[in-house]
Amino acid sequence: MIVLGIDPGLSMAGWGVVEKGNTDKIKMLEYGCIKTGPEQKLADRLKYIYDEIQTVIKKYNPEVVAIEELFFLKRATSVAAVGQARGALLVAVCNNNIPVFEYNPRHVKVALTGYGSADKHQMQHMVKAVLGLKDIPKPDDSADALAMAICHLNTNRLFKP
Amino acid sequence: MIVLGIDPGLSMAGWGVVEKGNTDKIKMLEYGCIKTGPEQKLADRLKYIYDEIQTVIKKYNPEVVAIEELFFLKRATSVAAVGQARGALLVAVCNNNIPVFEYNPRHVKVALTGYGSADKHQMQHMVKAVLGLKDIPKPDDSADALAMAICHLNTNRLFKP
Repeated sequence: MIVLGIDPGLSMAGWGVVEKGNTDKIKMLEYGCIKTGPEQKLADRLKYIYDEIQTVIKKYNPEVVAIEELFFLKRATSVAAVGQARGALLVAVCNNNIPVFEYNPRHVKVALTGYGSADKHQMQHMVKAVLGLKDIPKPDDSADALAMAICHLNTNRLFKP
Repeated sequence: MIVLGIDPGLSMAGWGVVEKGNTDKIKMLEYGCIKTGPEQKLADRLKYIYDEIQTVIKKYNPEVVAIEELFFLKRATSVAAVGQARGALLVAVCNNNIPVFEYNPRHVKVALTGYGSADKHQMQHMVKAVLGLKDIPKPDDSADALAMAICHLNTNRLFKP
């Protein structure tokens, strides 16, 4: 099963593709991030994000997308930016008929470390360890996206033993 | 010139199409609203909004889209909902290569009534009067979308006399 994890954002949206076969091992296929700048028009930024994630989807044909829930502790301006980017990303996913699962940050932490208050550093180390990588994926947004994808596979394992 | 005005929203997104020829008269072509319910999955709601506005775009082939700016006086949860819907709508517009203009509510009020603190009722009456309609367009979201489209034509007139 191929899972695409997404950490939505307007300036920077992280993505990561992982695969799990018959063994328990999870393999990293590719990760990256989509960057747009404030000098661009909002509509152009959203269209770029839509096109870029579409390219990733076409390349890997994931069965499932796991995306971070929009949470509301942030300022309204940042919710607005992330929200619009998230809308563009979700439309791209739906236009390819891929089911979407949403996870909140706490859920992802528990799924990866067994501990809901794990810090960023602990999370990134778990991503590196689970995927058998030499280094921690950079930028953070890509690591978060890979964590999201791993979280989906681990959570599914809990529900379907 | 055909202008599509959009009042973005997740539960209800209003749209209105108007046309202005060589005379100063602005004609209403069609208006409506796109409704989705909380019983649907978020991704499905966004996809539905994307598809519906796309249908309107294909039908009228507008030269320009005028959309309400996202403003931040609202609660973060409502900014999140409107933001995601707005992202889906803007991607649909951009996928059809139509330029987007954003207007804030105060700008729309000034463009329609000459008065930045006009209330909803005054605005709706101006929409009815400008378009020569028998009744005020319903629901309010459609009237707001038509106001947005009229605002674009009036604003453009000011800049290009």
